Amino acid sequence: MRIRHEVVEIDVENKNVKVRNLEENKDFRESWDELLIATGASPIVPEIADINAKGIFALSSLQSGIDVFNYIEKHKPAKAVIIGGGYIGIEMAEAFLDRSMEVSLLDMAPQVMISMDQDMAGIIPSYMEKEGVKVYLEEKLVEFEADEDGKIKSVITDKHHLKADIVILGMGIKPNSELAAAAGIKLGAKDAIHVSKRLETSVPNIWAAGDCAESFHLLTEKQVHIALGTLANKYGQVAGVNISDGNAVFPDVLGTAITKFRDLEISRTGLSEKEAKDLNIEIKTTVIDASTLSGYFPGTGKMSVKLIVEKESGRILGGQIVGASKSAKRIDTIATAITASMTAQHLADLDLAYAPPFSPVWDPVQIAARTL
Amino acid sequence: MRIRHEVVEIDVENKNVKVRNLEENKDFRESWDELLIATGASPIVPEIADINAKGIFALSSLQSGIDVFNYIEKHKPAKAVIIGGGYIGIEMAEAFLDRSMEVSLLDMAPQVMISMDQDMAGIIPSYMEKEGVKVYLEEKLVEFEADEDGKIKSVITDKHHLKADIVILGMGIKPNSELAAAAGIKLGAKDAIHVSKRLETSVPNIWAAGDCAESFHLLTEKQVHIALGTLANKYGQVAGVNISDGNAVFPDVLGTAITKFRDLEISRTGLSEKEAKDLNIEIKTTVIDASTLSGYFPGTGKMSVKLIVEKESGRILGGQIVGASKSAKRIDTIATAITASMTAQHLADLDLAYAPPFSPVWDPVQIAARTL
Repeated sequence: MRIRHEVVEIDVENKNVKVRNLEENKDFRESWDELLIATGASPIVPEIADINAKGIFALSSLQSGIDVFNYIEKHKPAKAVIIGGGYIGIEMAEAFLDRSMEVSLLDMAPQVMISMDQDMAGIIPSYMEKEGVKVYLEEKLVEFEADEDGKIKSVITDKHHLKADIVILGMGIKPNSELAAAAGIKLGAKDAIHVSKRLETSVPNIWAAGDCAESFHLLTEKQVHIALGTLANKYGQVAGVNISDGNAVFPDVLGTAITKFRDLEISRTGLSEKEAKDLNIEIKTTVIDASTLSGYFPGTGKMSVKLIVEKESGRILGGQIVGASKSAKRIDTIATAITASMTAQHLADLDLAYAPPFSPVWDPVQIAARTL
Repeated sequence: MRIRHEVVEIDVENKNVKVRNLEENKDFRESWDELLIATGASPIVPEIADINAKGIFALSSLQSGIDVFNYIEKHKPAKAVIIGGGYIGIEMAEAFLDRSMEVSLLDMAPQVMISMDQDMAGIIPSYMEKEGVKVYLEEKLVEFEADEDGKIKSVITDKHHLKADIVILGMGIKPNSELAAAAGIKLGAKDAIHVSKRLETSVPNIWAAGDCAESFHLLTEKQVHIALGTLANKYGQVAGVNISDGNAVFPDVLGTAITKFRDLEISRTGLSEKEAKDLNIEIKTTVIDASTLSGYFPGTGKMSVKLIVEKESGRILGGQIVGASKSAKRIDTIATAITASMTAQHLADLDLAYAPPFSPVWDPVQIAARTL
């Protein structure tokens, strides 16, 4: 059996780490020439009453998914409450609904999917409600209530008292940067480890990669903390090349992301209207409704596309898609156009693929571009 | 009832057209200040024995589709032979197969989909054969044979004698430019009407748009004739703006196209390897196999991506995709990257959307880019 170990200290001066053998609670030191910190991120877990009740789960690792699965198999929960309407919350709502549970989802914000704008995100809760999820917005988690066996019994919010047999915490994540901070390594955006584009930290010979590290936003050149699988994979590659004396640069990010709830697909890239306004960028926006395929083609569905462009230049800054099957992956066209500094006119002029089983004659992202 | 008319002559000198009332066979003249020629294209129909047999169809208009439908309803053909393995041929093979016909498809080339390279197009016939279509390549149509009622009986090729109750001609199209040529208007690529980027012909105040007109290839800046619905739609818009004293430019084209045969999706953009070599461009190419979604996700399928890049600069020149459901529309990412003069490295660096129901962590087009 593999013995579990944990690094408990980084000694920058002497170039070693203190490692704890968790089975025997014994420490030893391991020296390094180059150190890569890839400690990931952890779900945010609020310090409230009965947070440790059985049946409350946060998701981060493969094991945490297996734990939820096993709990369901064993206890057959009937009522699920999900805290948070982000990717995790929405995807878990789908999974629980598919297991015939009564599902409630709550978010303290007036919308789900906080990385999107209200006008687009607003499509999601009504669809979820139609499928059977009870959605509570602008509702804050106050505390939990466990029964005499220590099992979760209710979720208490500022407005309701919700019965629950299982609870998922989808309240966001925080980078695991405490070890780095304790060693004097500089932290940055949202307490992620500050890195250069080559993924060097503030301390020579120490690198950071993945969900614990910062990245640069392609449009603002500001440092951001965006924890996504695509980025984690690229981080690993770039860190590997640079640590082995190569020279690779971590590409700037747009926060391109995609998810779905049953037949509703959801994606976003670049700056939202809200983010652009927070940066005092003067913008124009459009939201259009189109069909996913040619209108007369069997299986066609509805989709909405939002584009955000810089007012004066017309340069595309962001896009959001919510719609039926085959809609959301079109966000890649927008992400590519943003990276290439294209304007809405450039996007409308692109020679994209059309045939009735795939798209209307004008691809919906181009229909949006044309209205600008 | 609407009376059918046809323009039979363009008088450039006197700025009028001679119009024939086809019901009464009477001519009259209609004058113009600005003239738009939008005569479209026609299917190529070879002059061979029994070409006029009942049951032989070429497809161009909505009506020609209705004619095929009505013929099938009335005569219940059992054996269909399709001449030509392009978009029309492949799509009609699917439609006939779905009506339980015995379907044969022949092409004089050693491959179907001549706008793609043999290595990618080669995936298609074996899939079609598996679904039940008999595919004959490097086989030339010689003549037809009709029965005593004038109905199609057989298709005679240079190698076989194929029984047929219905025949589709999918042998390509030619621009309807005779009227323009007769008026002294200059023709260009493949006898399409030569136009500027504003869609002016060689004669002042005469414009041409749609399948009868040329366009500029984005990569070669050479004039080409590509007849596709997306372009026809843009042609109309640009011509409309310019004729009404506006100033619009017809965007350069990449020949981006997409089709499918049952669950096999097919798309292409930019230059094929063959086209690049014909232009004496030094290139590198790659073909990769990937899964359409995360490998473990239900419903994932196989897809192949080919990229063609300029050898020295790494600039992307073309892409081709053949694969399962949800694969081919990714060609839009490649088309956008080509338009933006991106290299394979730029493509690999893009922040594209990933979630298991949509894509592997690295989008297949990026997997291809990385191998370069």
